[in-house]
Amino acid sequence: MTHVFGRHFLQIPGPSPVPDRVLRAISQQVIDHRGPEFGELGLKALAGMKTIFKTQQDVIIYPSSGTGAWEAALANVLKEGDRVLMYETGHFATLWKKMAEKLGVRAEFIGGDWRSGADPDQIEQHLRADSAHEIKAVCVVHNETSTGSVSPVADVRRAMDAAGHPALLMVDTISGLASIDFRFDEWGVDVAVSGSQKGLMLPPGISFNAVSGKALEAARNNGMRRSYWDWQEMVEINGKGYFPYTPATNMLYGLVEAIDMLHEEGLDTVFARHQRLAAATRAAVRAWGLEVLCNRQGHESGVLTTVMMPEGHSADAFRAQALRHYNISLGSGLSKVADKVFRIGHLGDINDLTLVGALSGVEMALSKAGVPHEKGGVAAAMAHLESTPAPGIDA
Amino acid sequence: MTHVFGRHFLQIPGPSPVPDRVLRAISQQVIDHRGPEFGELGLKALAGMKTIFKTQQDVIIYPSSGTGAWEAALANVLKEGDRVLMYETGHFATLWKKMAEKLGVRAEFIGGDWRSGADPDQIEQHLRADSAHEIKAVCVVHNETSTGSVSPVADVRRAMDAAGHPALLMVDTISGLASIDFRFDEWGVDVAVSGSQKGLMLPPGISFNAVSGKALEAARNNGMRRSYWDWQEMVEINGKGYFPYTPATNMLYGLVEAIDMLHEEGLDTVFARHQRLAAATRAAVRAWGLEVLCNRQGHESGVLTTVMMPEGHSADAFRAQALRHYNISLGSGLSKVADKVFRIGHLGDINDLTLVGALSGVEMALSKAGVPHEKGGVAAAMAHLESTPAPGIDA
Amino acid sequence: MTHVFGRHFLQIPGPSPVPDRVLRAISQQVIDHRGPEFGELGLKALAGMKTIFKTQQDVIIYPSSGTGAWEAALANVLKEGDRVLMYETGHFATLWKKMAEKLGVRAEFIGGDWRSGADPDQIEQHLRADSAHEIKAVCVVHNETSTGSVSPVADVRRAMDAAGHPALLMVDTISGLASIDFRFDEWGVDVAVSGSQKGLMLPPGISFNAVSGKALEAARNNGMRRSYWDWQEMVEINGKGYFPYTPATNMLYGLVEAIDMLHEEGLDTVFARHQRLAAATRAAVRAWGLEVLCNRQGHESGVLTTVMMPEGHSADAFRAQALRHYNISLGSGLSKVADKVFRIGHLGDINDLTLVGALSGVEMALSKAGVPHEKGGVAAAMAHLESTPAPGIDA
Amino acid sequence: MTHVFGRHFLQIPGPSPVPDRVLRAISQQVIDHRGPEFGELGLKALAGMKTIFKTQQDVIIYPSSGTGAWEAALANVLKEGDRVLMYETGHFATLWKKMAEKLGVRAEFIGGDWRSGADPDQIEQHLRADSAHEIKAVCVVHNETSTGSVSPVADVRRAMDAAGHPALLMVDTISGLASIDFRFDEWGVDVAVSGSQKGLMLPPGISFNAVSGKALEAARNNGMRRSYWDWQEMVEINGKGYFPYTPATNMLYGLVEAIDMLHEEGLDTVFARHQRLAAATRAAVRAWGLEVLCNRQGHESGVLTTVMMPEGHSADAFRAQALRHYNISLGSGLSKVADKVFRIGHLGDINDLTLVGALSGVEMALSKAGVPHEKGGVAAAMAHLESTPAPGIDA
Repeated sequence: MTHVFGRHFLQIPGPSPVPDRVLRAISQQVIDHRGPEFGELGLKALAGMKTIFKTQQDVIIYPSSGTGAWEAALANVLKEGDRVLMYETGHFATLWKKMAEKLGVRAEFIGGDWRSGADPDQIEQHLRADSAHEIKAVCVVHNETSTGSVSPVADVRRAMDAAGHPALLMVDTISGLASIDFRFDEWGVDVAVSGSQKGLMLPPGISFNAVSGKALEAARNNGMRRSYWDWQEMVEINGKGYFPYTPATNMLYGLVEAIDMLHEEGLDTVFARHQRLAAATRAAVRAWGLEVLCNRQGHESGVLTTVMMPEGHSADAFRAQALRHYNISLGSGLSKVADKVFRIGHLGDINDLTLVGALSGVEMALSKAGVPHEKGGVAAAMAHLESTPAPGIDA
Repeated sequence: MTHVFGRHFLQIPGPSPVPDRVLRAISQQVIDHRGPEFGELGLKALAGMKTIFKTQQDVIIYPSSGTGAWEAALANVLKEGDRVLMYETGHFATLWKKMAEKLGVRAEFIGGDWRSGADPDQIEQHLRADSAHEIKAVCVVHNETSTGSVSPVADVRRAMDAAGHPALLMVDTISGLASIDFRFDEWGVDVAVSGSQKGLMLPPGISFNAVSGKALEAARNNGMRRSYWDWQEMVEINGKGYFPYTPATNMLYGLVEAIDMLHEEGLDTVFARHQRLAAATRAAVRAWGLEVLCNRQGHESGVLTTVMMPEGHSADAFRAQALRHYNISLGSGLSKVADKVFRIGHLGDINDLTLVGALSGVEMALSKAGVPHEKGGVAAAMAHLESTPAPGIDA
Repeated sequence: MTHVFGRHFLQIPGPSPVPDRVLRAISQQVIDHRGPEFGELGLKALAGMKTIFKTQQDVIIYPSSGTGAWEAALANVLKEGDRVLMYETGHFATLWKKMAEKLGVRAEFIGGDWRSGADPDQIEQHLRADSAHEIKAVCVVHNETSTGSVSPVADVRRAMDAAGHPALLMVDTISGLASIDFRFDEWGVDVAVSGSQKGLMLPPGISFNAVSGKALEAARNNGMRRSYWDWQEMVEINGKGYFPYTPATNMLYGLVEAIDMLHEEGLDTVFARHQRLAAATRAAVRAWGLEVLCNRQGHESGVLTTVMMPEGHSADAFRAQALRHYNISLGSGLSKVADKVFRIGHLGDINDLTLVGALSGVEMALSKAGVPHEKGGVAAAMAHLESTPAPGIDA
Repeated sequence: MTHVFGRHFLQIPGPSPVPDRVLRAISQQVIDHRGPEFGELGLKALAGMKTIFKTQQDVIIYPSSGTGAWEAALANVLKEGDRVLMYETGHFATLWKKMAEKLGVRAEFIGGDWRSGADPDQIEQHLRADSAHEIKAVCVVHNETSTGSVSPVADVRRAMDAAGHPALLMVDTISGLASIDFRFDEWGVDVAVSGSQKGLMLPPGISFNAVSGKALEAARNNGMRRSYWDWQEMVEINGKGYFPYTPATNMLYGLVEAIDMLHEEGLDTVFARHQRLAAATRAAVRAWGLEVLCNRQGHESGVLTTVMMPEGHSADAFRAQALRHYNISLGSGLSKVADKVFRIGHLGDINDLTLVGALSGVEMALSKAGVPHEKGGVAAAMAHLESTPAPGIDA
């Protein structure tokens, strides 16, 4: 490590920095996962997650990465040969599609340019064309972590209803949940997929499915051969706070603490805080004379901002300079935008001064790396922060 | 919680108590899983696990419970309709078989009375009978956590070779690894399955496969449709210390620390320590006039000891008393021995005085619960400890 | 370190093992000691300590060891040439006397044989003899940590009153507070001295004075030249939760947590727990055929038990064996009983099974060290524990 | 707490933020302070502190705040009626003088305007006037924490030598040590006073004296009646790594870790890092159109920068806004500059981005509080950081 002193600025779009309270919670001694104390912990974690997903239906907690929860979503309701409709919002939507294909599902992919969220109109068109209702599920990424674009999930549901199509709505909100607004029940989502290391501010290691009654019913009658990811056994045993196999106890300690923190601030305040920091970040990018990858107004992410490098300049070389000189980690461009963009995470346990510090790291590293830009990004971000009330603090 | 003060005695056969060093390691701030610092961490963890499995072949680390690693073992080398030979050593062997069946594998189950490990002779017989070599794998549980019996894995390999059968040897050493001797390469194991929360002294949350070249080759040509559990992509990306999806970073911090601790003491010393404590525990059980479930000499586990309750007495009522009065968690009997046995874990971060304290909790709780027994178990255990040299301490 | 694995048994009479909850509290980030958050912390710590001392008068918290709080007690109310009456209960009473002399105070020392607490009758006699009321203070050690004898503080107050003597009553309850009963106001104590690393279960580093109005008044008119230890400035600034110089913030985090724990269990339950474990320990000593140093019935300590070695055997050699073989730290004999006794601490964060584990370490180490003894100490302790209800759990 | 999320910016001039590594070290379980493991810890801590003070003479570690180490310095070498020469660099120099007077020492105070460090010429003059050599010690504050001015300690020694005066040189480097250059032996200091919560990055709770042979000799023949602060007994017992009374074990864990960190970076790099950040801070202050309190070139502190408020504006009201809106703690003005200045700490575990974040908090809070200023302070600081090589990172 070059940097012995001073806090590392972990500004990737997840894992996000884990608050000290959560780290301390995680460092508690493990307990008997079949004893009475565990039952209380399990019930608390499961009930808490329902408040975060805003659902009164079921939530499943897996010891796995978010990728596992993707697979769980697919495996429980789809079987080999089933058709699904997916939307190419970026790298992660593409990975989910590839996973579906590996599992034998026929995925139709509505192409996208990676600069916006999903388009409900196109989804509606596709569904209308499927008059036989062969499409079993529509899969959308809520917050596309590779691009910083947000899909209008509620509008997707409206489009599905408008088309009168019975497909399930499956949403990847791995990086959206607990950072930007998500409403499982109100929006009519059937399966949501999430992970611990983003808005929930935990280390990576546990993941989630929220499951509607309709999806649970579908799982009973369909789905692939499955064991680890099977919802049914989970839901039954979860009723008393236990799990069918050994749960990641210490992560659950942290989860309960993180949920407490989110409610201490209030979810709406959390969401507003993210939006304000995101707007300040975009102000900085504009002031630098650079371009934000997401070019669809209203789709810009509150979680991260992806910045396009000027032609001929390597984003990865720039990021390496930022890390070396300023002890800040920025997100890399993935697959087709590799080395062409970098990503600034502004999610989770973050506040005004941390954001400004991070943006100053970007601004100074642009100079170090010889990337053409205007000065003044930090000043623009500060101007935005000063001129807008901080949620939960200012009136 | 009834007990505010005093250390809880977590004497279940896993999760085992996590050493403070490991808890502190886990509480380190998360880092960028794609940055240079992570690469070093990943390489260290992977190389370290090879020394624990005693293999120069591949080790896979999953963010999942051990149950996930079971599924990974099956999914990579077997496909629907494949035949496997399994051995009923107890509850966990049975669960593994059920999982295989859920996944469409045809499992032949050599019946057992749950009082010993697998019998290599019976395995040899079965394999000889399969002259068409249809059986794709032999699956054995190394240390059966539900009973406290150990299967002679090296002998199973010898039996397979004697039968001239090409099946893969797959071993569940979830609770055996790092507590009792296990030698992946030397014993000719093809796939080993393990977890973090036993001899490795971590919280639950990551799991392992060790994979032979032969198994990896089999996986290339066979196996189920799979994504999360797929070895191939893992092995490729692991080469530089990275993972195809977000790894459980904080657990890896702990893993590296735990492996350091195991080598500080020396694996042979670790194994000898476990055997000595196990023998002391059995001496206590005999002195109480109770019976150890494992009745096959040489198969008794160094990890846990399962004790049979006198007829007409509830093991669970006894365990509840032990927890309430003496702040000790004992393992329950599972499925067909439910309420008929209790299990004493003596694995991981444990020493002489902790064992005696634990055994005194058992002895006093037997009284509290009105279970007929002789006094003197603790004294017998102490006599054993005094009369046998402590590995690594006494000469 | 010889011992890589297994919990160390820290059975010295302080520092006592720090509960994980307290260690985590201490590991919180430091805050501005002049900011509003600190004020709340300070008020909580000060108010909490009053409940522990059972006083409505003032409590002072020093960043210092208990030795510093001894000096503070002397420096605030005595000046050079003043006479005090002290009682030789053991090593620590002797050290306090030496300190008084170093500071120029003329200490009269009622001799003792180190096998009991202070004798109120002798104190009364001495005070009656001082008809001129020249003696400014009577200094008594509540729980003598070097011997395991307890002085009857309430009786000392009664003796002073019977003698009609106006001296202040100053009590060292460094190792008594929060383990055995202590009642500052009810017992008419004027100055009490305590420390963090005993019944309060913190690491060493902060210490306490409880101060009566009478003592505070005396301090205004008397006392040595002093600055760091001065009560007056402390008391004034403490009113708002702040301190005249930088306080040991992280220790205060731990203090607040420890006080919460003590009240969760209830002070009376805490005291009863200590007495029961002490009685079990003495039962073990008797069964070994060894002698408890304290030979005055009713004076035996609930905090520690001092055991006399058989003639011709080295206590320190024995303790070294215990540490080496069984990973247990026992207290050494101090000054005139050096190498002749060892001390078993049974205070703070301790429960039945930890005590039995510790006693088994003593019993086995007696063998290792070739110390003549009977077996059966552990059995005797267990018999005591079984036959007496555990406070707060049984009944 | 208003702020649930995001890291608090603790930018007071001590306590400085404690690195996670140090917090984890402090959270280790306490050990027997008389056992062999402790001896090693004690030796390591004492030897380590010699490398920090740059001395081969003695270092004393007290469980106390820095104020205690002040008292220790005075009490060991001075007695009632002794004369000392002190220099009014600011609030803390004044407090030290008041303490000396409380202890009966006659302190002569060379007046200062709180805007620079000590003036060696004036000291030389005073000493020359003391032809009878009655002055026993010259007391100087190295880094005056209340003002941000540094005294040229080496020049003070030269002045004393030029005057041919035998007084001891006593230096308070509580906030200087381990942040800015200090050389005990080379500079001919006789007694240095320091604390844990500044450049050493520990929580408050332990303090230090470095002691020359000459001072130790003086202590043998002079000094006040003393016990807790007495050097002699300390030095003797420290030889084997132990302490005459219970040491603050957990703070020593942290100390050893912090010293390791300082040497990992290298002391010269640490000092250069502080100077660069201080210069950036002053650049910000100038750009705001505000004035730095220290107006003597070459005396500006690398540890903190004190900023004068424009006439008619309350520094404390401003600081309250900064805390409320931006979650940053700034230092208050003390005694005669109360409410007229605020202090920005930039010491210890700090890097470029944290500084910029902190300065942005100041800049935005100046607006919130309606304090007249120019924008551009943050930009000026960034310009400085970009234009100067980062020590240890850039070439």
